[in-house]
Amino acid sequence: MTTKGIDLQAYIRSIPDWPKKGILFRDITPLLADPNAFSAAVDALCAGYAETGVEYVAAVEARGFIFGAAVAEKLGVGFVPIRKKGKLPFKTESVTYELEYGTDTLEVHSDAIEKAAKVLMIDDLLATGGTMAAACKLIEKIGGQVVGIGFLIELSELAGREKLDGYTINTVLSY
Amino acid sequence: MTTKGIDLQAYIRSIPDWPKKGILFRDITPLLADPNAFSAAVDALCAGYAETGVEYVAAVEARGFIFGAAVAEKLGVGFVPIRKKGKLPFKTESVTYELEYGTDTLEVHSDAIEKAAKVLMIDDLLATGGTMAAACKLIEKIGGQVVGIGFLIELSELAGREKLDGYTINTVLSY
Repeated sequence: MTTKGIDLQAYIRSIPDWPKKGILFRDITPLLADPNAFSAAVDALCAGYAETGVEYVAAVEARGFIFGAAVAEKLGVGFVPIRKKGKLPFKTESVTYELEYGTDTLEVHSDAIEKAAKVLMIDDLLATGGTMAAACKLIEKIGGQVVGIGFLIELSELAGREKLDGYTINTVLSY
Repeated sequence: MTTKGIDLQAYIRSIPDWPKKGILFRDITPLLADPNAFSAAVDALCAGYAETGVEYVAAVEARGFIFGAAVAEKLGVGFVPIRKKGKLPFKTESVTYELEYGTDTLEVHSDAIEKAAKVLMIDDLLATGGTMAAACKLIEKIGGQVVGIGFLIELSELAGREKLDGYTINTVLSY
């Protein structure tokens, strides 16, 4: 599949056995480094949202900030950073979720958005969907409406969509 | 000072005693959340670089990714993520630098840019300058030319500019 005449998949580098044996990691840095590919990917993540009244883009640190901020800039809306526990300086709400081993906690500022604000969630990768499900719950906890979720890459065999049932999901590349 | 008619300083929230007693933290999240303030800040960081042949924007995780990616998108150039040790999947170069207590290590992919590529460095905050000095050294180690450094906020009493001697520095807000 091409996006604006660019085969974005050609800019994703596959790295075997990273971060551990048996995992084939999809490295997005060659795509980020190419201005046309980066721009086409941002455009694809924005597609369909320009006229929908989205008011914020929210994304989880660290890699999520890259496409999240670029999409917010392109759509001309505000950006809401969702961070790991203890990183945000003001009053926060938090959500704890399960990982393969143990748990993790995400936080957002309690006053990050107005009640009922329309929020587009962005991340680079949909794997198991656990982090994004927690991020959506967090935005809803502070009163936001998740109007869509955009991922650059979906690893479809991990069935992450099942954890995001009921949300509108847009993915640019699928493996 | 106003930027495009917006008093950006009014969107920075000061938080006393965070992350520890005696520190007055400058919280940029209200600025990020406001589309006009965010856009004006991105424009101010791009100012002067549109016609200079900048080829990449580089930034350090996590907060640096926010303005770094937005500036790269706006300038229409590639984005190079600089990360903490062990986060990047391909062959890396690294630089270790001193913190107040102990050391930290930054990494970048060895093939992130072409030799002699012009790189604009972006971060939200210039404090002591140690992280940015290390990031510049890293870009030079992989053959890049640092053509400028842009910060949203400069804490001038910490004299971070002294660690960045010889570089062209642009700051949007100063305390």
